[in-house]
Amino acid sequence: MGWMNLAIKEARGAAGEIPVGAVIVKDGEIIASAHNQKEALHDVTAHAEILALREAAVQCKNWRLNDCEMYVTLEPCPMCAWAIINARIKSVYFGSYDLQYGALGSAMDLRKNAISNLQVYGGIQEDECGALLEVFFAEKRG
Amino acid sequence: MGWMNLAIKEARGAAGEIPVGAVIVKDGEIIASAHNQKEALHDVTAHAEILALREAAVQCKNWRLNDCEMYVTLEPCPMCAWAIINARIKSVYFGSYDLQYGALGSAMDLRKNAISNLQVYGGIQEDECGALLEVFFAEKRG
Repeated sequence: MGWMNLAIKEARGAAGEIPVGAVIVKDGEIIASAHNQKEALHDVTAHAEILALREAAVQCKNWRLNDCEMYVTLEPCPMCAWAIINARIKSVYFGSYDLQYGALGSAMDLRKNAISNLQVYGGIQEDECGALLEVFFAEKRG
Repeated sequence: MGWMNLAIKEARGAAGEIPVGAVIVKDGEIIASAHNQKEALHDVTAHAEILALREAAVQCKNWRLNDCEMYVTLEPCPMCAWAIINARIKSVYFGSYDLQYGALGSAMDLRKNAISNLQVYGGIQEDECGALLEVFFAEKRG
């Protein structure tokens, strides 16, 4: 089972929230896994990526996550992209492109504003990741 | 005593960390106050602004902070600026400009990438806020 499938499974757990999931992998093992919990936690920063970065840092007892990869179902927003860059994550694999707010290549590329070796691969299992969001917003509209 | 003085006092409490402090004010009262704790908490997201936003949301039981103002000693980075915009903070007053990473007008202005009414006032007690950082980095170098 690919890592993106686990991120998709996380996203499906985001009941009542915009379904986004993220996992962080180190040495071939998952060290953190989270979904968006902005509403549940009343926390504007509780995006899947931020929660996963914080969990991984606890696991590593270090905010530096140099040898870690993140798999996330949606292109990170500027908040998450900057946190990922600062955490020195090695590679990000994301599913859907976010043309409006995506900050790793779509609306902007924040790597250009940093000294960063972050590798980014977009469009991984894009159809499946995008469908999660489409179904959520279609249901929300009624 | 002005609100920026309280943010400066917070910054001074950031022992061993880059000294940045932030307070959030609502209806003329402080509802959150924090300093950078990235190293202490092993958390790349534990900037003063993020910690203050999270505390304010707990106080308000809501991530929406529409009627709140933030006073922060340094111009917010992209992570913090995007969180501030998403939290719908009304106004940000910051001290030092961050020409390299400041995301509310210096290196970039993320308001341009959002639907946002955020008002930004930079350079408040700039000398005093800047001196905090200068002393910290001078001590670190020598």
